[in-house]
Amino acid sequence: MPKIVDHDERRLELVDATWRIIARLGIEGATMREIALEAGFANGALKPYFPTKDTLLELAFGHVFNRTNQRIAEVTEGRTGLPALRAFCLEVLPLDDERVNEARIVIPFWQKAINDPQKAEIHRQSMEEWLAAIRQYLAEARDAGDVRSAVDDATLASQLLNMLLGAQIEAALAPAGITDFGHARQLEGYLALLGGQPA
Amino acid sequence: MPKIVDHDERRLELVDATWRIIARLGIEGATMREIALEAGFANGALKPYFPTKDTLLELAFGHVFNRTNQRIAEVTEGRTGLPALRAFCLEVLPLDDERVNEARIVIPFWQKAINDPQKAEIHRQSMEEWLAAIRQYLAEARDAGDVRSAVDDATLASQLLNMLLGAQIEAALAPAGITDFGHARQLEGYLALLGGQPA
Repeated sequence: MPKIVDHDERRLELVDATWRIIARLGIEGATMREIALEAGFANGALKPYFPTKDTLLELAFGHVFNRTNQRIAEVTEGRTGLPALRAFCLEVLPLDDERVNEARIVIPFWQKAINDPQKAEIHRQSMEEWLAAIRQYLAEARDAGDVRSAVDDATLASQLLNMLLGAQIEAALAPAGITDFGHARQLEGYLALLGGQPA
Repeated sequence: MPKIVDHDERRLELVDATWRIIARLGIEGATMREIALEAGFANGALKPYFPTKDTLLELAFGHVFNRTNQRIAEVTEGRTGLPALRAFCLEVLPLDDERVNEARIVIPFWQKAINDPQKAEIHRQSMEEWLAAIRQYLAEARDAGDVRSAVDDATLASQLLNMLLGAQIEAALAPAGITDFGHARQLEGYLALLGGQPA
């Protein structure tokens, strides 16, 4: 009797393995051979699932982004305004090993995207979704009196998103073992600025 | 009579050529062959100057960083406080083609630095210099009454630096031809937040 194989399951295993290898060895070290080894596949068994390393990378990035979004959905559930905005940002910021690892995969993706319009488009669509969420939280926070700056929400949202992206770079390039970059304090400081309260 | 060759000059030509090639073709496209072609060197003539592509990349990044710092020194000369901070940030932000190109070289460098402690250290030292400059401008701006937030200068400086880094990603991944990302408005909005004036 032939073994029943869940192909979606196996694709996900491969994506997870890819993600671990990129975080550990960098994108240059993530050969199809290393990925197969990490996932417990025979060398060459990846081809039916992912004909090229590039398609695998695209899916691996999508997977990281989806997982981040799942966590965001969980932590923002039932929240609006400033509490939702805080929860969103705390989830995106590289505040633990798992998310520092995510930063280590997103930077190789950005590098690829510079000369690959399809990947750049994936990035832009993701960022558009995040900007829309941030703008909504800001509008709610403004209604609640938690945002009192004269600066418009679209500008604030873009500032904050760039701050979150910059934090990924700081975390990904830090020596191994460092996980506190003061990002939580930066976020609280920024939210305090939005309240417009002078010293 | 042997031709007199200015080796420093030739190294700089090669670095410039590398920089143009990376901006145009991406780091994968920047082979030693392409770089030699771009610089008008015979294939193989690069070796005495740069034994590996990696040493060339390191110098190319250093060159971009030095050039940015030269421009910063020019625009901040004779300025202190908020005007100096504004000038600094406007120089780092990718507000024209040249600086969008610079963003397109810095992201491949970051990607390399993730798994290369020496490159990561170059990045961290550069960022430490910038943070120190930003903190000094903030302290001066606070003395002048232009910064009235209760948030401390070190936290503000880290926020702002991450915002500047995030802006590089946005610019580098944008479709060719787009040069206005609203970064100047983001900066003005952020400086207004520092003043702590509610709407």
